[in-house]
Amino acid sequence: MKKRIFILLLAITSATIVQSQDKLFTIDEVVMKQRTSLAPERLAQLMWLPKGGKFSYVGKRNEKDVLIIRTMPELKSDTVLTAEELYNSLYSNNPNEKKFEKFPAISWLTNSSLKYFYGQSFYLYDFETKRTKLLVKLPKNAENIDYESNTNRVAYTIENNIYASDIASADYIDNLPSASGDMALNKSDMISIDGSYGIVYGQAVHRNEFGINKGTFWSPNGNRLAYYRMQENLVTDYPVMDLSTVPAKNKNIKYPMAGAASHTVKVFIKDFKRNRNIEVQTAEPAEQYLTNIAWSPDEEFLYIAVVNREQNEMKLNLYDGNTGTFIKTLFTEKNEKYVEPEKSVVFVKGDKRKFIWMSERDGFNQLYLYSVSGELIKQLSSAKQHISDLLGFDEKGNAAFYSAYSEDGMNKYTYSLDLKTGKTTKLTSIDGIHNSMLSPDGNYIIDQFSNINSPRRVVIIDNKAREYGSVLNALNPIYDYQKTEIKLGKLIASDKKTELNYRMILPSNFDATKKYPVLVYVYGGPHAQMITNSWLAASDMWFLYMAQQGYVVFTLDNRGSVNRGFDFESATFRHFGNVEMEDQLLGVDFLKQQKFVDEKRLGVYGWSFGGFMSTSFMTRKPDVFKVGVAGGPVIDWRLYEIMYTERYMDTPKENPEGYKESDLHNYVKNLKGKLLLIHGTNDETVVWQHSLSYIKKCVDEGVLVDYFVYPGHAHNVLGPNRVHLMKKITQYFKENL
Amino acid sequence: MKKRIFILLLAITSATIVQSQDKLFTIDEVVMKQRTSLAPERLAQLMWLPKGGKFSYVGKRNEKDVLIIRTMPELKSDTVLTAEELYNSLYSNNPNEKKFEKFPAISWLTNSSLKYFYGQSFYLYDFETKRTKLLVKLPKNAENIDYESNTNRVAYTIENNIYASDIASADYIDNLPSASGDMALNKSDMISIDGSYGIVYGQAVHRNEFGINKGTFWSPNGNRLAYYRMQENLVTDYPVMDLSTVPAKNKNIKYPMAGAASHTVKVFIKDFKRNRNIEVQTAEPAEQYLTNIAWSPDEEFLYIAVVNREQNEMKLNLYDGNTGTFIKTLFTEKNEKYVEPEKSVVFVKGDKRKFIWMSERDGFNQLYLYSVSGELIKQLSSAKQHISDLLGFDEKGNAAFYSAYSEDGMNKYTYSLDLKTGKTTKLTSIDGIHNSMLSPDGNYIIDQFSNINSPRRVVIIDNKAREYGSVLNALNPIYDYQKTEIKLGKLIASDKKTELNYRMILPSNFDATKKYPVLVYVYGGPHAQMITNSWLAASDMWFLYMAQQGYVVFTLDNRGSVNRGFDFESATFRHFGNVEMEDQLLGVDFLKQQKFVDEKRLGVYGWSFGGFMSTSFMTRKPDVFKVGVAGGPVIDWRLYEIMYTERYMDTPKENPEGYKESDLHNYVKNLKGKLLLIHGTNDETVVWQHSLSYIKKCVDEGVLVDYFVYPGHAHNVLGPNRVHLMKKITQYFKENL
Repeated sequence: MKKRIFILLLAITSATIVQSQDKLFTIDEVVMKQRTSLAPERLAQLMWLPKGGKFSYVGKRNEKDVLIIRTMPELKSDTVLTAEELYNSLYSNNPNEKKFEKFPAISWLTNSSLKYFYGQSFYLYDFETKRTKLLVKLPKNAENIDYESNTNRVAYTIENNIYASDIASADYIDNLPSASGDMALNKSDMISIDGSYGIVYGQAVHRNEFGINKGTFWSPNGNRLAYYRMQENLVTDYPVMDLSTVPAKNKNIKYPMAGAASHTVKVFIKDFKRNRNIEVQTAEPAEQYLTNIAWSPDEEFLYIAVVNREQNEMKLNLYDGNTGTFIKTLFTEKNEKYVEPEKSVVFVKGDKRKFIWMSERDGFNQLYLYSVSGELIKQLSSAKQHISDLLGFDEKGNAAFYSAYSEDGMNKYTYSLDLKTGKTTKLTSIDGIHNSMLSPDGNYIIDQFSNINSPRRVVIIDNKAREYGSVLNALNPIYDYQKTEIKLGKLIASDKKTELNYRMILPSNFDATKKYPVLVYVYGGPHAQMITNSWLAASDMWFLYMAQQGYVVFTLDNRGSVNRGFDFESATFRHFGNVEMEDQLLGVDFLKQQKFVDEKRLGVYGWSFGGFMSTSFMTRKPDVFKVGVAGGPVIDWRLYEIMYTERYMDTPKENPEGYKESDLHNYVKNLKGKLLLIHGTNDETVVWQHSLSYIKKCVDEGVLVDYFVYPGHAHNVLGPNRVHLMKKITQYFKENL
Repeated sequence: MKKRIFILLLAITSATIVQSQDKLFTIDEVVMKQRTSLAPERLAQLMWLPKGGKFSYVGKRNEKDVLIIRTMPELKSDTVLTAEELYNSLYSNNPNEKKFEKFPAISWLTNSSLKYFYGQSFYLYDFETKRTKLLVKLPKNAENIDYESNTNRVAYTIENNIYASDIASADYIDNLPSASGDMALNKSDMISIDGSYGIVYGQAVHRNEFGINKGTFWSPNGNRLAYYRMQENLVTDYPVMDLSTVPAKNKNIKYPMAGAASHTVKVFIKDFKRNRNIEVQTAEPAEQYLTNIAWSPDEEFLYIAVVNREQNEMKLNLYDGNTGTFIKTLFTEKNEKYVEPEKSVVFVKGDKRKFIWMSERDGFNQLYLYSVSGELIKQLSSAKQHISDLLGFDEKGNAAFYSAYSEDGMNKYTYSLDLKTGKTTKLTSIDGIHNSMLSPDGNYIIDQFSNINSPRRVVIIDNKAREYGSVLNALNPIYDYQKTEIKLGKLIASDKKTELNYRMILPSNFDATKKYPVLVYVYGGPHAQMITNSWLAASDMWFLYMAQQGYVVFTLDNRGSVNRGFDFESATFRHFGNVEMEDQLLGVDFLKQQKFVDEKRLGVYGWSFGGFMSTSFMTRKPDVFKVGVAGGPVIDWRLYEIMYTERYMDTPKENPEGYKESDLHNYVKNLKGKLLLIHGTNDETVVWQHSLSYIKKCVDEGVLVDYFVYPGHAHNVLGPNRVHLMKKITQYFKENL
């Protein structure tokens, strides 16, 4: 009897061990939970209040959402609002409405009022009265909604026209009649009238390149609205099949392909005080890029960084905000490869005569101080570091704060910069990726960071790097799972100087005397970086799954990727694929040198540019990889969009050899291994024609290849269907590698 | 030294043996050569001359095409024309033109003149003058060309309008100026003017059901032309992507889906003598089928078999050829399942008061003799045999000749029928598939036949079955190849009476003590039969390839297939898939009883209806087959065309349970084995949406499935790309079965 109990205890103990250190991932959980329960804990909606060293976040009390305010310097904690209180206030006169399941996304208007968007309406919650005001209710189909908090005006679009609602007053909800049902469209809100398929107002243009992510730009006090007008009638139509109806229907989209006619963009200004709508005189040629729109602090002037279609010249132009007249070009930037402004002018706090401009002109993204007349006062930074963000200024505008990557791109730190002396101070000392938020008064910084050893920490420092305490120290969310060691390292590129970062994930229960197959995950294109000194080194969690399944998972950031300076990124200029493969092959050589690598069982997988890379490898270097998977692959750069492609590749006419060399249709015949191409049928980024025409070429050349499609999916297979995608890819490697 | 010579000789001998009996097929040759060098020899363009017991065919002399005439009763052979002579005559005034590489397709106008179509022109070759006349040159984009040889008129279509060219005279080529270049469109030829997307003139209608394969019907003497007008504006558009351009373009087609609005068809008559164009008064309802158009011998009356949309009632209607007025319904046929007239009225030779009508009304397709007033004179045939063709009459119209299948559908014989006594005489005695051509005077029959032992024979008999000799006795074209035994047999269906034919191909070097995997090839739908007593038993030659690769290849013609009578074919009514699978499972049980069958390694493959069957099996009977391949599969009958689907399934509204039960979207979750779906992206028969929506369902249900597409291909992958298709399918079975 005693013996039996002992066995039982043992069993429980070993079960506990299994649970605590030997759990295996499932594909379902690495896909669906990698940003929720398998991710390090985070502070939701973490932000500063407008005044007085206070910040807020949404926490939990008894498993219900509550809004917490912490006050500096003691980090005093106050729960100021519960989701239930917010809900009760909103529906005080209509208690049958559905409760908030989570706290809505909020933003602070003042230290005692916040606003949020819910059911097509903006609401204000007033902490003093504990009552809710209806700010504005928008038509059901309103999109691209841009709220201006000084005037409570809202710009929005319906289909292809732009509207703005001029809000006279906001009243408390409980004073209003029950406001359910749609708001009818107020025709007087309509600013444009000729929006149509081919003429689009108030939306992001230039296919979201140059940092463009919206089409409306409120002036600082809300009296003027600059907005885009994009004319696309000369842009070719591309057919996208809508499979959600019976029978299927075609929907054409405007898709500007490299070398073809592009859209033409204009900027207009709606002046609310004078009720006028004027065109900004951006002049010819029509096919130029109007980027980085910004207002002067006094709303009198508009700044636009105008880039020519060739993308080798940028003019920072100044326009009259009253008349739209061109005033002058403040300065010009040229580069024989390309210029790519992605950040608007930022005026120095309290000084309407000076602004800061970010530019890669010295090889790294640096800060430059300019006078409003366009004279360079000085270059503010010069370290070989990519500056990613200007965070703001201190109270008097004497110091600026910014985020910058280490030269090797692996770490991101926060710095202060004395604008007079030019002295730079590193405020964050621990290596890793620091994401900082400066308080509005410029005194404090919320520093959120992680590195390969630390899942996530949130620490408050002041602008002299003094630490005030930690708000979050997240635990390892996958502590219970079988460990797969993540190794980071560097290889030297063929130029004998450039360091390339790699990440190698070793199989769980790794045994260096065994031989393992390798999965190389590749992206390789501009604007992206796969490896940083952050939690899991930025791995997709499926890589850990594959490592538990006995694969070494390897990734290398080749030249062409971001955050390493202009030379590194632009090394691929006019020859997409060549330098990238050269660098990746260093990784392959390194892998082959490892005794635990089975060099006959190398696989490669990538999506988008990574699909281009995977397919390039399988056919241009057919002896390297046994199995490849290419998702949403670019096959022929002539089929990709003007803005991105011409920047790096020039036009097909200017660079025929570069396009031909990178056109993967030309290498179909070389395929030796197993190649699976995958595409979302409704991909409006890398259009379906890339893979369909590749399959056609394979058929015509008698080459056996595999294919799969995700009907209805766009460029990435997102949502629950992503589980299917990763199971499909896993199956393909398991069956063939 | 001697020994060495001996070895050498041995090697040569064994090489010879390999070549003579042990060659293995390649996929390339079974696909590309099964209708050429691997097919039994044939007599090209074999046909009777208009008069006097003469027939012609294209033969070879010194490897060049020559036209040979054989004259009865001695079968005297005369070479009457060489391709070179024809070419010299055609280009007598322009010797630089390209030579005919082969004899063009000819037809006899008289015993001393033939016509052919070449380069958009009809030419006449006159054997007396040995000169060529230009009959008519048509516009470059003329299609659906229908030549009338009494008047030399030509009806044709350009885009969606109908034209007819009234030819005044034909002159010898060498009297004409060099006639290269396009003929300009002659506007006076235009009969219709409002043809457009949605209104189509002069083309086949009703999606080629009811035996319809053209849209123009010349009256016997060529003075009147009946033609179809199809209005499709209410038919839904279906989008087809044209991938041949950059960017791809959408082209909508009109695709009438089961239960939805259909096209409406009218018949018009162009009267050339009176230059009038009249509408035939076919009356309402508009959504009826106007089928089997025929003229009376005197051109005064038009016969149309009008079928209601429900397809359960056919009225043989008589219309006035002068006015288009409805005269009377001659008779009506009804069936609670469906009626499907596929053959027009045929007047008895020399008797303008009697015609023959073919109907399945007694359960088999029989001949009925009618008076022109619509009175049934008598049923002419009554054996339980499917009559496939009425071949014609003897000189005086006393006897008719027809082809009919044996009750089991395996053989097709030729019969004579005494119209007065009703006596039937079988003219062909050897079992097999006999395809007969009656001479215009009704005295002789060219009997071409094959059976499982005989590749092809062409024998001439008279109308009393007396044999006059053999013109061709083709050798076994695959004698050199490793033999794969083809076994034919019968199984009894679950109704305990119906015999089902099967064909089983055994692997080469068959060893009954071994276990072989089985590939079941299935079609299973109406209008088709996979197995007959013909050369190779009608096998696709790829089956022989697979048998050489070690597979048993099995096929069974289930109930629902053709040539077995109405009950057999209509057993599937309202429940596509059920009876078919039931019958096929008998085949599976039979296979499992064979000791040489590895019952764990059964695969199934089919295309179109066969794709529906394969997918049905893999998901509705998931324990039967390990691997399935479904090409161009119908997944959901609601997405298939009105004419075919509603005949067998009624409408979705009338038969919701039948549609639901056969909708394969509903069984996705059951899939256990490996299933590869394949589709041509430009399939306008079974539209791409079938497989795309199935893949979407698989993705949504988390079911792993394989997919491949043939970009640009229609319902069947034809041409050289078919080699890729068969390699893809072969690879799939080899890797997974």
